[in-house]
Amino acid sequence: MYSSPPALEKLVQELSKLPSIGRKTARRLAFHLVSGDREKMGNLADALMEAKEKLVHCSCCYGFSESEICQICAHSSRDREILCVVERASDILPFENSGIHKGLYFVLGGVLSPLDGIKPETLHIPELIARIEHESIKELILALGSSPEAESTALYIDRILANSPVRRTRLARGIPVGSDLEFIDDITMLRAFEERVKL
Amino acid sequence: MYSSPPALEKLVQELSKLPSIGRKTARRLAFHLVSGDREKMGNLADALMEAKEKLVHCSCCYGFSESEICQICAHSSRDREILCVVERASDILPFENSGIHKGLYFVLGGVLSPLDGIKPETLHIPELIARIEHESIKELILALGSSPEAESTALYIDRILANSPVRRTRLARGIPVGSDLEFIDDITMLRAFEERVKL
Repeated sequence: MYSSPPALEKLVQELSKLPSIGRKTARRLAFHLVSGDREKMGNLADALMEAKEKLVHCSCCYGFSESEICQICAHSSRDREILCVVERASDILPFENSGIHKGLYFVLGGVLSPLDGIKPETLHIPELIARIEHESIKELILALGSSPEAESTALYIDRILANSPVRRTRLARGIPVGSDLEFIDDITMLRAFEERVKL
Repeated sequence: MYSSPPALEKLVQELSKLPSIGRKTARRLAFHLVSGDREKMGNLADALMEAKEKLVHCSCCYGFSESEICQICAHSSRDREILCVVERASDILPFENSGIHKGLYFVLGGVLSPLDGIKPETLHIPELIARIEHESIKELILALGSSPEAESTALYIDRILANSPVRRTRLARGIPVGSDLEFIDDITMLRAFEERVKL
């Protein structure tokens, strides 16, 4: 069977390794890249190499950074007593976009999943506990998503800190702002009803 | 406002230039790339650079190739009397996958669109006409899609060749194999009805 030139096939193959990019989309992207202005490919390749070389994990929160300590952890005006624990580095952005959280972050690197071999030591849970012991943290916001694994990870951390004076909270669950009630799924409705607040 | 490290932002920006990749998808892809195995980024960057350097347009059909003449044009067993004219190089693949076309291809590079400044000379139409004059081509399959621009491009080529003995054909339009009649759009149904064939 015919196949495209090897260099084109290789590009399709590499692109199709990206999440949510299937073989057909990868082929479309590859043809887009090789057609028209070739400089675009160089720019994308440069951006990839630059990211590969420059980005490291912040040694304080494990988010992405170009220096040992990231912008947020290094910022003098952040409230060092409130720590928001997230699953992945990409979860920091929605908090920062809303501007509501003035404290710091801590990236766990995933959620517990013993069947997949993800134990507390695989994540940054020991580092989190050490940080709570050594720093004057007053509130830990466990912002970990709502999968069963994420919920049990939050419970696990909560239990370790059972005797600690640190206040543990999680984000409110309920109806998203602007949503139509008829499109709300059953579990969200259940949670929103259970956690209703006084007007 | 907070923004991710510059190297990460640059990667997001380059990825979001790809077709059908919006800012949110680009961010998700970028975080996927920088998380986990960093070698993946190097591989994708290498594939991009390799494609950028190696891929050229076949001087015969204008498809992509790593040599001056592409695999298909150089193949000794292809029927040199049947030429299939397509809009883009990516249109060659579905023909090759089906294995039905034993002849050669010719990539026009687009379709006529005078309002956008795309004239016959912008495309490879003069080269196509020259090729028909100098080679012993017996059939020209105009496989150009069904947009008004594509149809008028096919008509334009057909008209230039009005006095030529070359047979001009186009692909049959009709119900795709395996489709449910209730999901067929009106124009396809119209064409399928008009072009019905004897059982």
